[in-house]
Amino acid sequence: MNETDAGRKGRLLIIGGAENRTCGAGPLETFAELAGGEDARIVVITTATEVPEEVAEEYTAVFGRLGVPSVRELRLLGRRAADDPATLRALDTATGVLFSGGDQSRLRTLVGSRTNELLKRRLEQEGLVIAGTSAGATAMGHWMILGGGGHEVAASSVKVGPGLSLLDNVLIDMHFNERGRLPRLLSGIALETRLLGVGIDEDTAICVGDGQFTVVGTGVVTVVDAGQCTVAYPASDDEPMAMLDVSLHLLPAGCTFQMNDRLPAIGTMRGPKGD
Amino acid sequence: MNETDAGRKGRLLIIGGAENRTCGAGPLETFAELAGGEDARIVVITTATEVPEEVAEEYTAVFGRLGVPSVRELRLLGRRAADDPATLRALDTATGVLFSGGDQSRLRTLVGSRTNELLKRRLEQEGLVIAGTSAGATAMGHWMILGGGGHEVAASSVKVGPGLSLLDNVLIDMHFNERGRLPRLLSGIALETRLLGVGIDEDTAICVGDGQFTVVGTGVVTVVDAGQCTVAYPASDDEPMAMLDVSLHLLPAGCTFQMNDRLPAIGTMRGPKGD
Repeated sequence: MNETDAGRKGRLLIIGGAENRTCGAGPLETFAELAGGEDARIVVITTATEVPEEVAEEYTAVFGRLGVPSVRELRLLGRRAADDPATLRALDTATGVLFSGGDQSRLRTLVGSRTNELLKRRLEQEGLVIAGTSAGATAMGHWMILGGGGHEVAASSVKVGPGLSLLDNVLIDMHFNERGRLPRLLSGIALETRLLGVGIDEDTAICVGDGQFTVVGTGVVTVVDAGQCTVAYPASDDEPMAMLDVSLHLLPAGCTFQMNDRLPAIGTMRGPKGD
Repeated sequence: MNETDAGRKGRLLIIGGAENRTCGAGPLETFAELAGGEDARIVVITTATEVPEEVAEEYTAVFGRLGVPSVRELRLLGRRAADDPATLRALDTATGVLFSGGDQSRLRTLVGSRTNELLKRRLEQEGLVIAGTSAGATAMGHWMILGGGGHEVAASSVKVGPGLSLLDNVLIDMHFNERGRLPRLLSGIALETRLLGVGIDEDTAICVGDGQFTVVGTGVVTVVDAGQCTVAYPASDDEPMAMLDVSLHLLPAGCTFQMNDRLPAIGTMRGPKGD
């Protein structure tokens, strides 16, 4: 770590998957810039994917095109690797860490590991920039969505488990509108209404820092706030739940959201109705 | 009309399509009961469908099983038929009228016709029960959704046109969660935020009367209330809109909704969270 980084809060970039990797625009460009541009040292954690060589090669090429020469892969296929001092040394000098997509169940091996602890500490105290896309996105939360689906809001429509806790009090879902996942996210939120639901479209991200996030990319971020919600649970996990007074926000690029006050705002490039 | 019906408000039963027609349960049973059971005189309007004989035959069989002997089809394939005194006479003695599914564009020929006027008058003053399923459901509103789709909330995601105005101030969509139509309904509501959005699942209905509706059937009714919403319109109809503070309610069977106060309530068979 640089001396100048001490005490500096980092940034989280949570990407809904399928981000543009062909040109220099979008969430990956934002990540490369935040991580230091030409001076960035990026680590790509490929634990989630079953094709790590391919994924690492592709990201190395993209970041190369974006002017970042230093990209390293960490595969971390078990707790031993995630607790290994060599792993921690590699992460200690990174300015940016990207969790690839794949199957988020494979990321459970990292939860609570020394890698997890180091990332959280460096994010909160040393200005580290951490990105996650698709499977790597939902793993950022205190809980992560492991699976589920269907068109009904029901307890059986979602499966959750502990996440990396890099961002507390949220439940993240991805490939969101493309795969019609509002019922799955609402099902998770209905089971823990204090969590804020954040559904991120493909090629879209939230950039989190200083208690708020900003939306970047070509799609929309859907926020589900059940803080004032009444939920009625049916006898069976397969039956639909009743949910009253869920607050819903659809936020395209430029929109912001204050996490503590749960307050959305429209981006400066857009006027309110009638402007 | 019976003398005893004078001044009595009717009921609307708005069905999300694919209602159970094989046994005696669900929305069609509710309709047959409301229309008078054994004493009902039901007219099925098959204007929306391209296979009217088949549809009429199927409903005749269902209502027969439900104990209604009197079922008549009206095909009404143009404005002349919809204004024909013989048509009006047939509708004047009906206790229940059902609009079949099909393509709602075909129902435009009825909008503003003498049939339309008669149905509205008898609904409001003579206790007539009117049901519509699928295409026949969305046609009930002041505006009806004619088409559209996709996963984005954008002006280009929905096409609307004038409806039969049997229920004012709502925009109805159907096959709702089965076909992932929340983006389409939100797109329509974003363009006219005073309308209440009502998305009705298959084999599910709202029964409207006395300023409120009750949900019946096996699925969920999704209510979108944009009364407190802020909308930001992008430059292009294809780009996603920003929508802040949309209120969302998911209402399974037994739930009620007060139309004027826009107030949802959980059905008596369900307790709130913690009960």
